Amino acid sequence: MQKIIILIHCKDQKAIISTVTNYIASKEGNIIYLDQHVDADENVFFMRLECEFSTKNWDLNALKSDFEQQLAKPLQLTWEIYTQGEKPKMALFVSKYDHCLYDILGRYSSGELPLEIAVIISNHEDLKPIAERFSIPFHFVPFTKEIKEKGEKEQLDLLNQYQIDFIVLARYMQIITPNLIAKYRNNIINIHHSFLPAFPGAKPYHSAFKRGVKIIGATSHYVTEGLDEGPIIEQDIARVSHVNSIEDFIMKGRDLERTVLARAIKLHAERKTMVYDNKTVVFY
Amino acid sequence: MQKIIILIHCKDQKAIISTVTNYIASKEGNIIYLDQHVDADENVFFMRLECEFSTKNWDLNALKSDFEQQLAKPLQLTWEIYTQGEKPKMALFVSKYDHCLYDILGRYSSGELPLEIAVIISNHEDLKPIAERFSIPFHFVPFTKEIKEKGEKEQLDLLNQYQIDFIVLARYMQIITPNLIAKYRNNIINIHHSFLPAFPGAKPYHSAFKRGVKIIGATSHYVTEGLDEGPIIEQDIARVSHVNSIEDFIMKGRDLERTVLARAIKLHAERKTMVYDNKTVVFY
Amino acid sequence: MQKIIILIHCKDQKAIISTVTNYIASKEGNIIYLDQHVDADENVFFMRLECEFSTKNWDLNALKSDFEQQLAKPLQLTWEIYTQGEKPKMALFVSKYDHCLYDILGRYSSGELPLEIAVIISNHEDLKPIAERFSIPFHFVPFTKEIKEKGEKEQLDLLNQYQIDFIVLARYMQIITPNLIAKYRNNIINIHHSFLPAFPGAKPYHSAFKRGVKIIGATSHYVTEGLDEGPIIEQDIARVSHVNSIEDFIMKGRDLERTVLARAIKLHAERKTMVYDNKTVVFY
Amino acid sequence: MQKIIILIHCKDQKAIISTVTNYIASKEGNIIYLDQHVDADENVFFMRLECEFSTKNWDLNALKSDFEQQLAKPLQLTWEIYTQGEKPKMALFVSKYDHCLYDILGRYSSGELPLEIAVIISNHEDLKPIAERFSIPFHFVPFTKEIKEKGEKEQLDLLNQYQIDFIVLARYMQIITPNLIAKYRNNIINIHHSFLPAFPGAKPYHSAFKRGVKIIGATSHYVTEGLDEGPIIEQDIARVSHVNSIEDFIMKGRDLERTVLARAIKLHAERKTMVYDNKTVVFY
Repeated sequence: MQKIIILIHCKDQKAIISTVTNYIASKEGNIIYLDQHVDADENVFFMRLECEFSTKNWDLNALKSDFEQQLAKPLQLTWEIYTQGEKPKMALFVSKYDHCLYDILGRYSSGELPLEIAVIISNHEDLKPIAERFSIPFHFVPFTKEIKEKGEKEQLDLLNQYQIDFIVLARYMQIITPNLIAKYRNNIINIHHSFLPAFPGAKPYHSAFKRGVKIIGATSHYVTEGLDEGPIIEQDIARVSHVNSIEDFIMKGRDLERTVLARAIKLHAERKTMVYDNKTVVFY
Repeated sequence: MQKIIILIHCKDQKAIISTVTNYIASKEGNIIYLDQHVDADENVFFMRLECEFSTKNWDLNALKSDFEQQLAKPLQLTWEIYTQGEKPKMALFVSKYDHCLYDILGRYSSGELPLEIAVIISNHEDLKPIAERFSIPFHFVPFTKEIKEKGEKEQLDLLNQYQIDFIVLARYMQIITPNLIAKYRNNIINIHHSFLPAFPGAKPYHSAFKRGVKIIGATSHYVTEGLDEGPIIEQDIARVSHVNSIEDFIMKGRDLERTVLARAIKLHAERKTMVYDNKTVVFY
Repeated sequence: MQKIIILIHCKDQKAIISTVTNYIASKEGNIIYLDQHVDADENVFFMRLECEFSTKNWDLNALKSDFEQQLAKPLQLTWEIYTQGEKPKMALFVSKYDHCLYDILGRYSSGELPLEIAVIISNHEDLKPIAERFSIPFHFVPFTKEIKEKGEKEQLDLLNQYQIDFIVLARYMQIITPNLIAKYRNNIINIHHSFLPAFPGAKPYHSAFKRGVKIIGATSHYVTEGLDEGPIIEQDIARVSHVNSIEDFIMKGRDLERTVLARAIKLHAERKTMVYDNKTVVFY
Repeated sequence: MQKIIILIHCKDQKAIISTVTNYIASKEGNIIYLDQHVDADENVFFMRLECEFSTKNWDLNALKSDFEQQLAKPLQLTWEIYTQGEKPKMALFVSKYDHCLYDILGRYSSGELPLEIAVIISNHEDLKPIAERFSIPFHFVPFTKEIKEKGEKEQLDLLNQYQIDFIVLARYMQIITPNLIAKYRNNIINIHHSFLPAFPGAKPYHSAFKRGVKIIGATSHYVTEGLDEGPIIEQDIARVSHVNSIEDFIMKGRDLERTVLARAIKLHAERKTMVYDNKTVVFY
């Protein structure tokens, strides 16, 4: 059996579910998972399907082209189709913090992440030994405001060279350039160490401490042009109290950052996220 | 527009989704929500649909009978259809604890619960003044092991008289008889003050305290013949520590009991729960 | 035995704990709970003690005056002493939302809150029947920008008349005047329906929905001159997803508002909160 | 300045706090943290202190011996004193699961754990490459019922050789022998993949799935003779629903196991846990 994942996004319309499910049935496909969402205000429709096809006479490209002609064109669908085994290629951007890096590499080595970590890119050389320990190619790409264009070019070259599908910023402390964002629209995942939209920008734990909050958080989101303003994929929180120092906030926050980023990466790699209107639809 | 809810439960089979959604489309119905679940091990299929029909020529009974003939019989579906406005009638069973009672009556008065509280039945007279305060009929039905049959008869008579659809045990401290369970199979909701299956039976907070747990819980479940062994609808937890006495456990637990029971009642009244194999499917 | 609660706040200084605990021991008091906190950055010290004294020859006023002379004056302590049974008098301010009101009155009637609800004050007459149902005096005090001074005077007169110790704003939808804030500094508790500092001001659920957050929250805080900027007492959160409408956010939020406000009221009434530097120390 | 941690455990007695704090003050020590707990039912007293002493004329052994003579003997205290910098030596026992191992080694490498991982001992050779990657000594010690005595001897020899203070079972799938438990009483930490006391023993995720729970958990506890019955240090939970398969339970559970075990290790290494009556006092 061949298992595929279909993502559909279109204007809401009559009989859309029956039309799509009929199509699958007509191709002798068996739906094993279907989730859909209608945003009534925006009048948009989203669907995620997992289907099984008998492998006899199976041809993915034929299916895609048929799908486009028979279904997508008439209904004006935006769509993506993936085979189950297809692992997206990921690039990790890091600076000096190593806790998210260790966590991702540990999970990756344990076989928890359905993806391939193709390359680690950093604006510092500090974390190179960790990359080596896990046998992942590491590239040092200096990046500052002054050499932005040079840095961006090197990044883009590496992303091309390693045929990268999506990028994860694991506490990467530099701005991502508009060109990179445009090229990897909805494919760059950042972890911000606050409960957005509270405390965007620099030093959120310090701001949270000063404000005297009783709960801190972390937020994973797709990167857009606005700082920490992209579509949120996942958030989580931890309780704090007056006994906790800023150092405690940071330490508790590290656990949040690890977990929230790992969940977002997994959801993205499993093709469970869809973006619209600066929000995400996340099919669990 | 007329809005209806359809629940379907059957053996898993090919093209089941497209067959059902085609049927809705053929009746000019518009699906505004669809969620389904396949239990691959048990080979069973569950679906919950919300559909809108134009009210012109609308006839619920005709639809039901057509649905049965055209769809349910050939596919061997177990099904239920409700119109959106239809509020189920609920009976509240209480003893002496008043916190869940106050909570439910408060939510009910605030318009949060899509149901009608038709009657409160108790084996004590203590809570009668609360029922009166909220203008709900209150019946005192003594119940002990010795007068079990008499008590059960009085309960069944009242449930008939008030045309009760489902029963909520809001810390009711007596056994429910097998007759009552059989008559209201999957329609009696209990709140147990522990994180089941830990600490079933009497005095769970005392047992939790003795065991030194760091988290306590509450569980809402459908009542079956086995004590605290029925299908779980909802659970939640709260942190405790060595500083908390048994009295603190009980006080924190009251909040859990309130919240977990209220959520279960709401899910049930909204027809979002389905039961099989001593488990629940809960369509959020 | 007579049980008392002592709250102490002062500049951090050498041997402060031993000096205070010696004093208690010298008076034949037995410490049954002690919690302290040092803010090293601000160089301030906080302590909460629960002590038991034999009731023979017990005289609270004598103790207070001795405490002031022997301890507080030399060490420059700010302090409060309460006897255990002493219930603070609370005024409830409401507008039209009834869910927090029902919740507080239910808990109060169940004996969960160590306080006396002396009066309910509202700028609308809608909730009067609920107050009557629970036999709490209700006063309608119109309040708008135009009649602010008249409204404030009526409020202050009622607070004096009922000898109110602290005020709870249970979704009261009007500004509190600076005079009232000054008179009840750190004694007015508000519930805001967001995870502050995210989404202060009006319509936070709408803003949260628009931003696409995956978690919503509620915050209970002491009222200060800055809107939603006072010291935070308690916060909690609930998960949301793309399937939730704004109405779902509001409904889930009601549960948060109820729980968070109830916890803050209880903590305040038990004298477990201390305020400094726009933060709270909360001794659990 | 020299910083020390003092743990005290004794029968509850009059003026115990003032006596201890006076003693510290008399030695020119400055208390920077004090937390205490009285179990009124058991009549026992616990205290944890962090104190600073000027390093001039500082002598830890002199202090310990003076503390024993002046304080501990007369008051019949059980006590421990540690200097702040003193890192306990930890042995990791593993079998074939690598996710907790990766997590602990990652945190250790990031500098999050105030301890020294001296050795990894396993009854399989599978995880040896990971130990090598992080440059930690790895010893293969076969262990089955048949060669229990031989295995135990090898384990004890290694623990002696590496001067191990405490042992962490990171999903080690063999019984710990009574001799080892006795030698490391309250110093062997296990992670069990359920919310104890629910689902002790083998395959807890399978049992949880079968029971249809809505929340799963993990529990970290000190190992005693009774299987999964030792004093609980830390627990946490995650929500599940009908959509989750057993594989999902296991995957979500891995995150719980990692986090809960890491927290327990940290609390133990920071000397924040005390055990009595099969429970823990955990000073946060």
